[in-house]
Amino acid sequence: MPPPSRLGPPIPRKPMNQALERIDTLIEARWVVPVEPADTTLENHALAIRDGAIVALLPISDARLRFSPAETVVLEDHVLIPGLINLHTHTAMTLLRGHADDLPLMRWLTEAIWPAEREHVSEEFVYHGTLLGAAEMLRGGVTFANDMYFFPDAAARAYEEMGMRAMIGLVVLDFPGNYAANADDYLHKGLAVRDKWLGHSRLDFSLAPHAPYTVSDSAFERVGALAEELDASVHIHVQETRNEVEDSLKQYGLRPLQRLQKLGLLGPNLLIAHGVHVDDKDIELLALNQVGVAHNPVSNMKLASGIAPVTAMLSAGINVGLGTDGAASNNRLDVLQEMRFASLLAKIQADDAAALRVHKVLQMATLLAAKALGLQERIGSLTPGKRADICSISLNANEIAPVFDPVSHIVFAAGREHVSHVWVDGKGVLANGELLLQRNEDLPAISRLWQNSLQNKRS
Amino acid sequence: MPPPSRLGPPIPRKPMNQALERIDTLIEARWVVPVEPADTTLENHALAIRDGAIVALLPISDARLRFSPAETVVLEDHVLIPGLINLHTHTAMTLLRGHADDLPLMRWLTEAIWPAEREHVSEEFVYHGTLLGAAEMLRGGVTFANDMYFFPDAAARAYEEMGMRAMIGLVVLDFPGNYAANADDYLHKGLAVRDKWLGHSRLDFSLAPHAPYTVSDSAFERVGALAEELDASVHIHVQETRNEVEDSLKQYGLRPLQRLQKLGLLGPNLLIAHGVHVDDKDIELLALNQVGVAHNPVSNMKLASGIAPVTAMLSAGINVGLGTDGAASNNRLDVLQEMRFASLLAKIQADDAAALRVHKVLQMATLLAAKALGLQERIGSLTPGKRADICSISLNANEIAPVFDPVSHIVFAAGREHVSHVWVDGKGVLANGELLLQRNEDLPAISRLWQNSLQNKRS
Repeated sequence: MPPPSRLGPPIPRKPMNQALERIDTLIEARWVVPVEPADTTLENHALAIRDGAIVALLPISDARLRFSPAETVVLEDHVLIPGLINLHTHTAMTLLRGHADDLPLMRWLTEAIWPAEREHVSEEFVYHGTLLGAAEMLRGGVTFANDMYFFPDAAARAYEEMGMRAMIGLVVLDFPGNYAANADDYLHKGLAVRDKWLGHSRLDFSLAPHAPYTVSDSAFERVGALAEELDASVHIHVQETRNEVEDSLKQYGLRPLQRLQKLGLLGPNLLIAHGVHVDDKDIELLALNQVGVAHNPVSNMKLASGIAPVTAMLSAGINVGLGTDGAASNNRLDVLQEMRFASLLAKIQADDAAALRVHKVLQMATLLAAKALGLQERIGSLTPGKRADICSISLNANEIAPVFDPVSHIVFAAGREHVSHVWVDGKGVLANGELLLQRNEDLPAISRLWQNSLQNKRS
Repeated sequence: MPPPSRLGPPIPRKPMNQALERIDTLIEARWVVPVEPADTTLENHALAIRDGAIVALLPISDARLRFSPAETVVLEDHVLIPGLINLHTHTAMTLLRGHADDLPLMRWLTEAIWPAEREHVSEEFVYHGTLLGAAEMLRGGVTFANDMYFFPDAAARAYEEMGMRAMIGLVVLDFPGNYAANADDYLHKGLAVRDKWLGHSRLDFSLAPHAPYTVSDSAFERVGALAEELDASVHIHVQETRNEVEDSLKQYGLRPLQRLQKLGLLGPNLLIAHGVHVDDKDIELLALNQVGVAHNPVSNMKLASGIAPVTAMLSAGINVGLGTDGAASNNRLDVLQEMRFASLLAKIQADDAAALRVHKVLQMATLLAAKALGLQERIGSLTPGKRADICSISLNANEIAPVFDPVSHIVFAAGREHVSHVWVDGKGVLANGELLLQRNEDLPAISRLWQNSLQNKRS
């Protein structure tokens, strides 16, 4: 007779193999930090996965009595966390990584990035850049990207092939570019792409008006109406720089957030990227309207945009997640790195070494980001019923030894080189630090191709 | 007849193998950033090494005509830089990595670190912790540590075995600890260790009064006299927190730097760690006396100490290098990471995205640190005549592709996982990301031993 399980009813007295539940994968780990419930580190626990979903989180000893897995993965020195969420990025811009550094936002945009984009951005640029960016993110345990760029169909194809989960922003601008001619054209093209991919298990689409300073009132009104009609998220850059706020006050007599409020855009389906220059009234407005915020500490430092008041926003109950922004202003799509910067920057900003403790910053990179996108029923924590988006980090390397608290190590010591395994929708995409996807083999040639192309145009 | 060399006189017309200079190692690399001259990135260059010294830096094609190397290392996608210098650390504290987080300096010291040290620090703790810390640093391209901790003989043995270069601070405190009873005892023991190792090619010793708030005037006076007598460097924590400055004003009517000036300690042989709360007068004092500064961005953020005015200090001509501080307040001994934080933090602090450009921050991590220690004749740049302390970083990984500027990648994109090869004093200590030292095999057992010991005492 098998020993009784400590979880659930005792196993019935019938032959062992009949009593066991069939599952696809059992992951046994030294530590599991499910994020929900908060501040919890479980030891020697296992995750059971069936049909791409988490079916149980329980002690290893109990899991072995309850399940018959097709595959078992044993991670003896590892911590399992929810797949990390990159809440604001322009994935295809990996092709512009390090193309221009040490410049402030407006000069960086007008002198370096926009000219390069006019010259190079195409369906193929976005497809290739998104492949490369998705590979980078999966390598670092990032299973979800909230993306905003041009040629969304090319991005969707890349995410589909890389096995990654994404929300792809259908960008809207009031000026013409390589992709579309005007706001109507952007929306028209974007909605056609959304229709094409509707119902895909890993891909979702948001409306992505670029920023208050690049989108007119009438375009915002169309976006607002469409978002309501389609029940879609809206993803936008807001109050990233001091100038943006000052210019808006001059032009509209309103701060950007006030203008968006007037236009009816503030609500739970809105996600603002940056939110660096937000005052107490802005924070009140964001909290009252349940607007989500993507905090991008590295990008905000690199472009000298400023320090977002993250601890104040979190205290107000705002769902603040972490974003890398594009690789051109970072220059990594590395949410582990953003966690470290977010925590350390918050301590300096709040003048309090206790600010943004390690469990809280892990919550930002997972559950709070999922909530900011309204996806908390599907992703963001290792909770039975949610999709099996999982990241495993190995903590046995000499350079990060010893380990007293695995969550401290995730935030302050480990790097993405220690990410060992990643699952998206229950499917393994990284094992022992190696991407499992065949597409991975094409990436060196792809990056060489664009490096040569961009370099020739520069010189 | 061989084609004439572009460097030096044409090769004489005699059999090729007689014309060639014998060297130990030739390293051929895609890029070399020698740091001296400044802002220079050489392509397809080679470093020639003989008897632990750099004998030439020249185009690969010329090097092949001029030298007969015992060993050639070809690094096709790599950038060579001077070995990184960790200008302020407490290496043995790796054993306390992640032992206590999210606490401000004084609470962190008095409630967590000092009690753990009283309980555990011994000759063996320092030996083991320094082995582990040295392994971590070498893995990340750090070839030199400016260390300050207890039991300096144990530290020296560890650096000796790991093949690393170090300046070991002979700590002086006015209160008793596991290592010594009072300031005289600290000095007495320290000088004996210094005598024992005198003349070692990779080990040097400084006098290390801990901080103005832990050392009395009389002990400082003894340290000052000894430093002059021995021509030794002095390594000390100064003006790390606002409280330290305020307390000094209350107790002595002087800011800590003013007190050190009064005691005759300010001079080119002085290196202050932190220098966070320095005002314009302090900066003038530091510049006038050619005092060096170790900037510790991550530690200063983690303990919420503040942001050091690095760009102002550099503008004043002060030699400012980068330190990791101990692993307990960081939690990595990773100078590549410090470069990234230093650059990004300076941009935010100066409100200028152009502040602390990539070449400058690499200079801080190498040549300026060497100058701050008075060691610029021996290390800090890839200059013929200097010791061959060299770091190679591979830039061909998908997650950091493409590469437009290798120095941008060193600062903003690469991680220590991309450090491929390291030489100290001409001897290879890391190749293809693996430490070559036999001692490395003992490290997992060492870290487990202390983890168990520290954890049992904690619970």
